[in-house]
Amino acid sequence: MSYKNFPMVPRVVFGRGSFNQLNEILAPKRLNINAPFIYLIDDVFKGNEWLTSRISLSYDDRIIFISADEEPKTSQVDALVEDIILTTKERPSGIIGIGGGTLLDLAKAVSIMLTNEGETKDYQGWDLVKNPAIYHVGIPTISGTGAEVSRTTVLTGPEKKLGINSDYTPFDQVILDSELTKDVSKDQWFYTGMDCYIHCIESLSGTYLNAFSQSYGEKAFDLCKEIFLDDSLSEIESQEKLMMASWHGGMSIAYSQVGVAHAMSYGLAYLLGTKHGIGNCIVFDHLEEFYPEGVKLFKEMKAKHNIELPKGICADLSDEEFDIMINISLGLKPLWENVLGKKWEKTITPAKLKSLYKKM
Amino acid sequence: MSYKNFPMVPRVVFGRGSFNQLNEILAPKRLNINAPFIYLIDDVFKGNEWLTSRISLSYDDRIIFISADEEPKTSQVDALVEDIILTTKERPSGIIGIGGGTLLDLAKAVSIMLTNEGETKDYQGWDLVKNPAIYHVGIPTISGTGAEVSRTTVLTGPEKKLGINSDYTPFDQVILDSELTKDVSKDQWFYTGMDCYIHCIESLSGTYLNAFSQSYGEKAFDLCKEIFLDDSLSEIESQEKLMMASWHGGMSIAYSQVGVAHAMSYGLAYLLGTKHGIGNCIVFDHLEEFYPEGVKLFKEMKAKHNIELPKGICADLSDEEFDIMINISLGLKPLWENVLGKKWEKTITPAKLKSLYKKM
Repeated sequence: MSYKNFPMVPRVVFGRGSFNQLNEILAPKRLNINAPFIYLIDDVFKGNEWLTSRISLSYDDRIIFISADEEPKTSQVDALVEDIILTTKERPSGIIGIGGGTLLDLAKAVSIMLTNEGETKDYQGWDLVKNPAIYHVGIPTISGTGAEVSRTTVLTGPEKKLGINSDYTPFDQVILDSELTKDVSKDQWFYTGMDCYIHCIESLSGTYLNAFSQSYGEKAFDLCKEIFLDDSLSEIESQEKLMMASWHGGMSIAYSQVGVAHAMSYGLAYLLGTKHGIGNCIVFDHLEEFYPEGVKLFKEMKAKHNIELPKGICADLSDEEFDIMINISLGLKPLWENVLGKKWEKTITPAKLKSLYKKM
Repeated sequence: MSYKNFPMVPRVVFGRGSFNQLNEILAPKRLNINAPFIYLIDDVFKGNEWLTSRISLSYDDRIIFISADEEPKTSQVDALVEDIILTTKERPSGIIGIGGGTLLDLAKAVSIMLTNEGETKDYQGWDLVKNPAIYHVGIPTISGTGAEVSRTTVLTGPEKKLGINSDYTPFDQVILDSELTKDVSKDQWFYTGMDCYIHCIESLSGTYLNAFSQSYGEKAFDLCKEIFLDDSLSEIESQEKLMMASWHGGMSIAYSQVGVAHAMSYGLAYLLGTKHGIGNCIVFDHLEEFYPEGVKLFKEMKAKHNIELPKGICADLSDEEFDIMINISLGLKPLWENVLGKKWEKTITPAKLKSLYKKM
């Protein structure tokens, strides 16, 4: 029996306004004047002086604004890495990701691919990364994915949507400043928050669970209930608690796995480009048979916040298209094993998945 | 406004039997054959083949058995460091602490003092350590202190009982194997578990609290209630959950502080040598006015497990002795400020502390 030696983020700052400490934190990490810091920032912050004026650019430091309208892709990482190599005199001092899960995952992947040869798609899987990544910092501006603390960076490649799971993936530094989440739209707030909630349901009811992951998952779950069902929190408290829910939810995956919602939403993402948060919500809404209590509570939260999920997104798909989604989903074996144990293939057949996708 | 950039333990293994992975984890950390691993182990494990046979000693590796009957002292750290320097050819590859809070704190302190000049007592305080410690590993065999995850190592010096609080203090690696706690005596199990419970009460009701520390403290508190008041857990579940309670309780101190029980029990420890776990229990039992709900629940736990606390330990003390305890306690300003805010000195007078100590 061998247990994972889990890598934790070695440095974390938590606090409203802690983003102001970024320059001070980075300064001692600068290798030399030819090794810049590269900031990958969600392009919703383009022209947002409130945020960008607090980033002090020196020497060849550079901001690259990136749209999070689409899920992050392996080809996108390859292009970013090539651009960075071509335009910097030396390997960067660090990569700083500022945004939601998409930007955080891009920052992790770019920092890995700057020190590892070949194409990003070749590293999708478990423990395929050979060299330590360069110093990378994660600063979430949307809460829920757990990308700030997790050991993966989930990317859509030519053949699959799958994470680069490795000991070199986690950030070296995370800054948790809930003030950065204040302008997230209500829908996005809900979808990404539900990503955390769904993580917890999947992790807590999974076969992989142990006491470590359970304690983190339960705390994230309790926080989600408080945030999405109670009315007792101020706006700031709610933002701070959702940031912690995301953190604990991400930690709960350490010795666990996600489940049906993630496995199926990866299929939607691969074929239709459905984004992760909303994709999980669309799937989870139909998973009563797997997670009866969890789905009931989810529907309460959805009603309370007047969230309308898209309907009929699979209505016009061909059989070939269904097969593509089903194959992507069935390929995520650890997720299905977490749901139903070693014999999961007896229950989860292509026909079963097709009938579920058809409801969506 | 500046928030602490908190150092987290960068590697953690959790799992029943994970102690078996120790040799595999250490192997790549060996600097050379002249740089041994030094194991500091609670002497209750002397002759315990079940534990020691799993430690593979190579080259100049060495086990030092240490009694945890007394609280760890700065002079003890100085002596250990001198002994290690005199008997090793090169600076060790690592220090591995195996035991309860006493052994874990000794391992942290020794690893710091091997790379920092002068006497241990000179580093008691906040952020006085200049050089990174050598690689150090913590393996708890009693759960509750949070020493496995905290940023301090609490030592009794010639002038004070106070921690070496620094970014270099936390372990580089922790192994959480609840099986190692299976032979802890019932009294010790209770006292050390209550150290965690009392941490949580002090942290959650303190003025320093933020959402980060609150979420960890609440989880540790919930786990303590489950372990010490419910009857639904198996022995193994209870051991695993207490290990996680200790972990989360330690994390909850990141942006918080302990309070009255710790401030006063440090006085008992300094003057009378009262050990930390039982000392906190003795003090906390009399703190209804500060923590009414917390003390009520503590008394329920005490009754449920038939724990008899010593009484009258301050009965025969002289005025001078009371003054010594009171001065030690009043010196812990951050703790008192956490309890009552900036104006704590209006309430916490020497006379007030004396009246409390007299009850114990």
